[in-house]
Parts: sequence; C-alpha cells; structure tokens
Amino acid sequence: MAKSPSRILETAIYADELEAAEAFYGGMLGLERIGRVAGRHVFFRCGPGVLLVFRAEATEVADAGSPLPVPVHGARGPGHLCFAAEPLGIEGWRARLEALGIGIEAEVTWPGGGRSVYFRDPAGNSLEVAETRIWDR
Amino acid sequence: MAKSPSRILETAIYADELEAAEAFYGGMLGLERIGRVAGRHVFFRCGPGVLLVFRAEATEVADAGSPLPVPVHGARGPGHLCFAAEPLGIEGWRARLEALGIGIEAEVTWPGGGRSVYFRDPAGNSLEVAETRIWDR
Repeated sequence: MAKSPSRILETAIYADELEAAEAFYGGMLGLERIGRVAGRHVFFRCGPGVLLVFRAEATEVADAGSPLPVPVHGARGPGHLCFAAEPLGIEGWRARLEALGIGIEAEVTWPGGGRSVYFRDPAGNSLEVAETRIWDR
Repeated sequence: MAKSPSRILETAIYADELEAAEAFYGGMLGLERIGRVAGRHVFFRCGPGVLLVFRAEATEVADAGSPLPVPVHGARGPGHLCFAAEPLGIEGWRARLEALGIGIEAEVTWPGGGRSVYFRDPAGNSLEVAETRIWDR
C-alpha cells in the first residue's frame, strides 16, 4: 500500500471562551494568530503545523454562513496536546511558565529518558511540553 | 519574552474502541504503533510527531497503576486532526482512501488555494488530508 501519512498538519482542541484561548496561546505563549471567526474558532501557526482552537458548540453543526462543505466535529471535556520543549528546553519552559504565572500541574521524568512538564489552558485542556527524545526510537 | 513553541510534538484524539483505532491508524493508514496499554491508549509515530489515541473513560481518572503523576484529560465527541497530503498528494490520497474502502465525506478547495479531503475514523473523529499550502503565508 501507499506511504503512511508523513506528518500531522493540524492539531485541534476545543474551548468555549475563544477570547481567553487567544489571550493564552497568542498573548502568553506567543503563537502567531493566523485565523479567527468570532464565536467559532481561532487558529495559530506553530512551526510547520497549525493549532486550531474550536468552540464545539459552533463546529458541531454545519456552518450556514459558509459555502464550503466542511464536516462537523466538536469534542467536550479536556483534551491534550504536547509542544516540543526544544529549543528552549525544559528548564527554560519551567522558568517561562513561572514568569507568566502559569501553574505547573505535574512534572514527569519518563523511564525511558526525557522530561515533561504539564499545565492547563484556560479551558482546562491538558498541555504538555516535552523533550522530543521521549519519543526517540 | 522567550520564543513561542517551536512545534507540536503530540496530537491527541479519543476513541472508545482502541482495537478499531489500531486497525484503522496502524493497519489501514500504515502508521507505526509505538505504544499500547489495553483499555487506555494506543500511540503511533507520524513523521516528526506522535498521534495519541486515548480512551477517555480511562484517562479522565488518575492511573492507579502508574507511578507517574500524568494529569487527567479526556474529551467526548468527534475531534479533528489533519494530515499533510504530501508527498502522496490529494489525488493519491483520494485513490488510496477509495482502495481502502474509506468513504470521503467532503472535498474542499479553499478560497486561498489548496485542497482538502475529509473522512472519519471508526470513532467518528473528523480526519482531513490537506495540501500544506492551505496554510502558506
């Protein structure tokens, strides 16, 4: 069969309060905002990929205002995503989160090597910053 | 302030039936499985990143069997993610999905250029394959 997918281009999470999400991911974490539709979504560039923050209440029904047949979706409850710690490194991230007043929920040193720190976005999604070597072969 | 996150390392979605998820992402799409805990999760490598498929019922409570303080999370309802179409290309993907018997739910040509095809995983998550130029500056 053909090749498997080469990489993930878009990662989606959900938030009811998009203004809070924008202040957090854009203002605090510094991601570049590349799209916004009030009440529906806010999108950010993150390196070679894109982070999509959707308001499930808006995306779980067809968008009557759009001519494009974009399928519905929408999840409720805390999701998860992980940013690569590099190049700042875990220590740099820990200092940065502290400076931003973002509480660290947990720190993990993985049995196979590498560390993660966990925190939450305003919607309660579980965010992680990890050394990429946690997934080395 | 410090640099913004350089890239997303882990993308998470949720599925109640992990065996079906494994057959789909591993068997049909061809992603390499890199982790599995029965009833809790199955993980796949996807290029420079990782796709995590969790069973929310298991991850929304603390894992009593783990010594690691991994925070709880867990979303219900259809999530979304998008794979880069390259290098196979949208036409290649369309043919591949057809050969696999995976129905295409929608096709979109974006006003700014680039195309997407949409389909579903067995749990109902909305999957997309897109030409990466849909996000070009």
